[in-house]
Amino acid sequence: MIPQRLSFVTLGALDLPRLRAFYEGMGWTPRSGSNDEFTAFLLGGVILALYPRHLLKAEAAPDLVAAAPGSWNGITLGLNVEDRAEVDRVFDQACQAGARPLAPPQDREWGGRSGYVADPEENRWEIVWAPGVAFTDAGAVTEP
Amino acid sequence: MIPQRLSFVTLGALDLPRLRAFYEGMGWTPRSGSNDEFTAFLLGGVILALYPRHLLKAEAAPDLVAAAPGSWNGITLGLNVEDRAEVDRVFDQACQAGARPLAPPQDREWGGRSGYVADPEENRWEIVWAPGVAFTDAGAVTEP
Repeated sequence: MIPQRLSFVTLGALDLPRLRAFYEGMGWTPRSGSNDEFTAFLLGGVILALYPRHLLKAEAAPDLVAAAPGSWNGITLGLNVEDRAEVDRVFDQACQAGARPLAPPQDREWGGRSGYVADPEENRWEIVWAPGVAFTDAGAVTEP
Repeated sequence: MIPQRLSFVTLGALDLPRLRAFYEGMGWTPRSGSNDEFTAFLLGGVILALYPRHLLKAEAAPDLVAAAPGSWNGITLGLNVEDRAEVDRVFDQACQAGARPLAPPQDREWGGRSGYVADPEENRWEIVWAPGVAFTDAGAVTEP
């Protein structure tokens, strides 16, 4: 059987030291052993890894040329917070840390609230409060 | 402070029912409430969500045109398994479930073993065994 699991999200970094500095600037601590070739952040139950784009491409996409810089990669990364008001707080803090605002926090028709920002390499994060979805310290989702 | 957390990975689906069927074909169970507009899989400590590409783009990328279909999105998704041999087993099972093989399982110079496959919309997964990295049932990473 195939484990029902997602354990890493890897960003192919164009400038890894700069990208790492951005996440460190959000107050995040890399795992020990992180360096200019590979950096990992334990994000609850999942690891966000930074790996040079050309090396990741050599492993994962030998058949394709790199997507043009600046094009959207078709994926967003979600950061769930505890309540509606925290969406705005975290959105502001992310922008202060250098994230580019894409869509200001707004109530969503499905009942939650979220805003979107981009990191320096156009990886897009949704900062979101979703009623009925909560997380343990380990990042595991708790059912209502 | 900004929580050090990643809780969702959302794929902007071009054909959501087909993409969901692919993951269900891997033996994965969607969360209750999943439908043709939104489907979520609890993957340990993180949720993989499927949301129509044009709707996700309207939320997250109002300033950009969609990347060309077939171009690599610059991100890989990691699925860690328990030991070296399980990489090959899971790789084969994923291919049997319809994944496209990109790079066969191989020992990596950093000490682990991994192979790459693509889902039907070119989202790229690394099936990987990494020594010293283990996961609880909740998906949380346990340090050695």
